[in-house]
Amino acid sequence: VEPTTVLVDGVPAATVSVLDRGLAFGDGVFRTFAVRAGRPLNWQWHLRRLAADCALLRLEAPGEAVVREDLARVATGDATVKIIVTRGVATRGYAMVPARPTRITVAFPPVVHPPEAARDGVRVRRCALVLSEQPRLAGAKTLNRLENVLARSEWHEPEIAEGLLGDARGHVIEGISCNLFVVRDGTAATPRLDRCGVVGAQRERVREALAAQGTAVVERDIPWLELEAADEVFLTNSLIGAWPVRALGGRAWAVGPVTRRVQALIAESDARA
Amino acid sequence: VEPTTVLVDGVPAATVSVLDRGLAFGDGVFRTFAVRAGRPLNWQWHLRRLAADCALLRLEAPGEAVVREDLARVATGDATVKIIVTRGVATRGYAMVPARPTRITVAFPPVVHPPEAARDGVRVRRCALVLSEQPRLAGAKTLNRLENVLARSEWHEPEIAEGLLGDARGHVIEGISCNLFVVRDGTAATPRLDRCGVVGAQRERVREALAAQGTAVVERDIPWLELEAADEVFLTNSLIGAWPVRALGGRAWAVGPVTRRVQALIAESDARA
Repeated sequence: VEPTTVLVDGVPAATVSVLDRGLAFGDGVFRTFAVRAGRPLNWQWHLRRLAADCALLRLEAPGEAVVREDLARVATGDATVKIIVTRGVATRGYAMVPARPTRITVAFPPVVHPPEAARDGVRVRRCALVLSEQPRLAGAKTLNRLENVLARSEWHEPEIAEGLLGDARGHVIEGISCNLFVVRDGTAATPRLDRCGVVGAQRERVREALAAQGTAVVERDIPWLELEAADEVFLTNSLIGAWPVRALGGRAWAVGPVTRRVQALIAESDARA
Repeated sequence: VEPTTVLVDGVPAATVSVLDRGLAFGDGVFRTFAVRAGRPLNWQWHLRRLAADCALLRLEAPGEAVVREDLARVATGDATVKIIVTRGVATRGYAMVPARPTRITVAFPPVVHPPEAARDGVRVRRCALVLSEQPRLAGAKTLNRLENVLARSEWHEPEIAEGLLGDARGHVIEGISCNLFVVRDGTAATPRLDRCGVVGAQRERVREALAAQGTAVVERDIPWLELEAADEVFLTNSLIGAWPVRALGGRAWAVGPVTRRVQALIAESDARA
């Protein structure tokens, strides 16, 4: 396993208690983001999403000052950082007994993607696994991620960069590790995520940046057939930025102008951060 | 947090790596069972269910000899033991990269329930949370247990012993920490668990023991209305044995003969173990 720098509750440590509820029940949330020259990218959206997800689980979110202090210690240069907040160490049983949350900050080496992915687009597949619907958890990046694990195990071909996930109603929802946008006749849409799926910080920034330019992104149900009919499809997350989708099965796409604009908006926003 | 004895991969340790996939994704399974005078109760069913759940996640299940060796070291007397098997330590990303599973064995003090629960029955409530349906994970006791955590947070009244969970189709499925049986006109049934729910080892033993006596337990969809109309309702898990349900909202039940027979069968089986 690659080298990392880890803080647990601000203290250098590589381990957590076996009684941590993050392990016992996946009772916690996480965020993954890029740090460039010591600056966390898209930081405001990551903070907001962390706070929202903690609130959903009735977890006390760590304050910004505390998190920034952790970051300054683990990631002074370029890095991929993952922050995990769990309900902390507790005895057996599902009840939310009072426990001090555990805050884990892990710095991995920066992720370097082949430049072709952003430039020419990626090939994706439609996963056989169908996302379950749980409105009480939808949108949150919780530690309950077995659906993602099972979906990612469906293929091994390295030429397939990502798997797309849908719900049982015939809608596309997201990628295993990213969100998805479709563009048709200049109008952008992204799946609603109130029954399943994860609201990514990059997704939210892209929606905000496009809206600021007068391009509202509609959040709604998107049937698979509509995906096939789209002029452009692109994927977003905090490590890839925005990747055009160039192929799904037999359907091929050229990289479109909205996708290029989104890539530019992300780059500008990251440069300003 | 109460005192415990812990082995991680057979070595005394109180912690696991922050990079363990059990923490990162809930990528693992667990069993909880009673040990009496050093003997794990209902052991064969726990082993079978552990193997089945590991297979579902394509995890290598620990061999019986290894697990028994752990048990002999952590629980020589009476204890509640929890065994967790995770996909082990790995770098970031959902892909099932080759990793050595992590085996965690934790001995807690034995659970002592008030004798009235088994004797007179317990009051339960119907949870507002509705279980999501994921056939790919249904039945398995995975570390993705946030639905249980949220459901258990719905009430604080100590006189309510358990919450019942249903699916979106109007069926009762299970208790938060137990399985459920209904009896009507001498015929027993328990919810099918192929879309959601956890197959408990005690549930399987009860079905087997009743079948051996000529009382087949039908596994099927059970609407909430049918639960209300039942002559007897009882709950099973490896720590409570079988508890009669004496009240759900305004509906009250007397403890019935099948419930008493199940309690006797469990006691006999535990004594033989």
